[in-house]
Amino acid sequence: MVIIQVWISFEIDSIEMQTIQKLQDYFRDKLSTYDYPEQPAALYEPVRYIMGLGGKRIRPVLLLAAYDLYKSDTSAFKAALAIEVFHNFTLLHDDIMDEADIRRGKPTVHVHYDQNKAILSGDVMMIYAYQLLESYPKEFLSLMKTFSQTAREVCEGQSMDMEAEQRDDASISDYLNMIELKTSVLLAAALKMGATLGGASAADQKHLYEFGRNLGIAFQIQDDLLDTFGTAELLGKKIGGDIEQKKKTYLYLKALELLGELQIARLKEIFLDSKIEMDQSRIDEVKDLFTKSHVKVHAEELKLVYQQLALSHLAAVSVNDEKKTTLRRLAESLLNRKV
Amino acid sequence: MVIIQVWISFEIDSIEMQTIQKLQDYFRDKLSTYDYPEQPAALYEPVRYIMGLGGKRIRPVLLLAAYDLYKSDTSAFKAALAIEVFHNFTLLHDDIMDEADIRRGKPTVHVHYDQNKAILSGDVMMIYAYQLLESYPKEFLSLMKTFSQTAREVCEGQSMDMEAEQRDDASISDYLNMIELKTSVLLAAALKMGATLGGASAADQKHLYEFGRNLGIAFQIQDDLLDTFGTAELLGKKIGGDIEQKKKTYLYLKALELLGELQIARLKEIFLDSKIEMDQSRIDEVKDLFTKSHVKVHAEELKLVYQQLALSHLAAVSVNDEKKTTLRRLAESLLNRKV
Repeated sequence: MVIIQVWISFEIDSIEMQTIQKLQDYFRDKLSTYDYPEQPAALYEPVRYIMGLGGKRIRPVLLLAAYDLYKSDTSAFKAALAIEVFHNFTLLHDDIMDEADIRRGKPTVHVHYDQNKAILSGDVMMIYAYQLLESYPKEFLSLMKTFSQTAREVCEGQSMDMEAEQRDDASISDYLNMIELKTSVLLAAALKMGATLGGASAADQKHLYEFGRNLGIAFQIQDDLLDTFGTAELLGKKIGGDIEQKKKTYLYLKALELLGELQIARLKEIFLDSKIEMDQSRIDEVKDLFTKSHVKVHAEELKLVYQQLALSHLAAVSVNDEKKTTLRRLAESLLNRKV
Repeated sequence: MVIIQVWISFEIDSIEMQTIQKLQDYFRDKLSTYDYPEQPAALYEPVRYIMGLGGKRIRPVLLLAAYDLYKSDTSAFKAALAIEVFHNFTLLHDDIMDEADIRRGKPTVHVHYDQNKAILSGDVMMIYAYQLLESYPKEFLSLMKTFSQTAREVCEGQSMDMEAEQRDDASISDYLNMIELKTSVLLAAALKMGATLGGASAADQKHLYEFGRNLGIAFQIQDDLLDTFGTAELLGKKIGGDIEQKKKTYLYLKALELLGELQIARLKEIFLDSKIEMDQSRIDEVKDLFTKSHVKVHAEELKLVYQQLALSHLAAVSVNDEKKTTLRRLAESLLNRKV
């Protein structure tokens, strides 16, 4: 028994000066042996299912990496888990709303179980995320303020995303605001919460939050780019999914500014006329219009602006530059330039 | 300006030594002028809609009445609102799961708006309830522990309720456990949170929690009784709704213990054979079987046991007996014996 305990504690102490891979492995290891509640099984089975589907675990890794700037123990795990549980709750409910059948190559929760279980298990995940934060009595109010504010913004972002599908007057600033809320603020909150737990100054917390917020926007713009101009083999999914769903991404909205009158009319017709079916030739036509508009260059430039903003906030964090290597590399790997 | 402030402060101070009606009016007044967030409208409109549907506001009144045992100011309002927002979130999501069309005489949220809005607005209500508790930094961790634990139990109760519909081996103790989680713990938590905010001792908090928990179980048993043996005019709704939905209430489960073999077989057949439609003659047949089993007396006795347990916990609360009048009357009015 004693030997096992020593071994565990050695494993735990070794997460000093982390690489991304180490943090990811550490989180995945802890996650794979984590005991969720058991009963009622109908409620917690879907929780185990979605949490077991995998994924890059970006948000908890960001939280752990931010914590690691200030302290090198493992006490941030439950906060990292809270962020990941919350993120998976949003995926679970979003999949119902989007009528998505597949998530990470497996049936979504409402398909694998049923819709009622998906709603209720999602609800309990949100509460469970809150409960995980009770492990930090000293920082509790501060963590909760960040967490609740962010959780509400994520809902607001999802609402704006659903509404944008119904509207034909969305602007680029609406779109950027939407992706900021739907995607970026949770990355930002993960970093800030890690910093809070690490005992960072208010200024550092703010810089890490802004690093995450700008990183998230750059990441989403890249995601839009890859979805249209990426390579299916590299991406591991079909190209043109956004176009097929007539999603009003940055590419669409900016192309409407860049194209000539006739081309704009045609692009709008394809996106806004619900009678027009998005078959492959229609997808190719849109992609061709995007290419002609040179929107790709604009998107890459915009991505770079947010990327540089993110890095400038990381640079302003008042810890030894070497310690920031993990977060810098994480940003680089997320904003991989092989688009 | 000064005069208006004096008037407001007079109004506010007058909620000392409350009657139920005064507490209810106070809560309703504050609620009717409460500013929920505005944007995005698609997200917060359904929140305003369901919160405006009315209802007895039992849970916030319990919280205010418990607070009032210890302090006589109005600072517990936001906690009372948190409980009511959370309760309405559960109604909103339960209505989707139960495919209910009508709530308090009005279309349910997923009917009035759509299902996606109902899911997402419910989600944001839960988060909003948590945020309301941020107004109490001193008691925050304690309030949150009660609140999250209870919220999870309510989900567990709803899960057990949905599962019971699929099963044919539910026991009376399963049923009591289910209604405790689905209904009682939130009443209990409201009382405990009011006591926490009032600065009650741990013992008092516990007694008030137990008062609410037992009160809630008695209330639910009475609800089952009224649904089958009540008077439509007094109740303001159709009698026999539970039977029509083949709900495995205490009446059904206990009748299976009390009836003769042939009658049990018939009752089970009606409830478990999905081919049997519940028309009026079938509802009357079940009601007749319930009457023959004398289950009503058993239910009334069981209700009385929980009612007495509740009152004994209230008696044990260490405040002046006169101060407890409101809660005693509230219990009496909830457990009105005109069944």
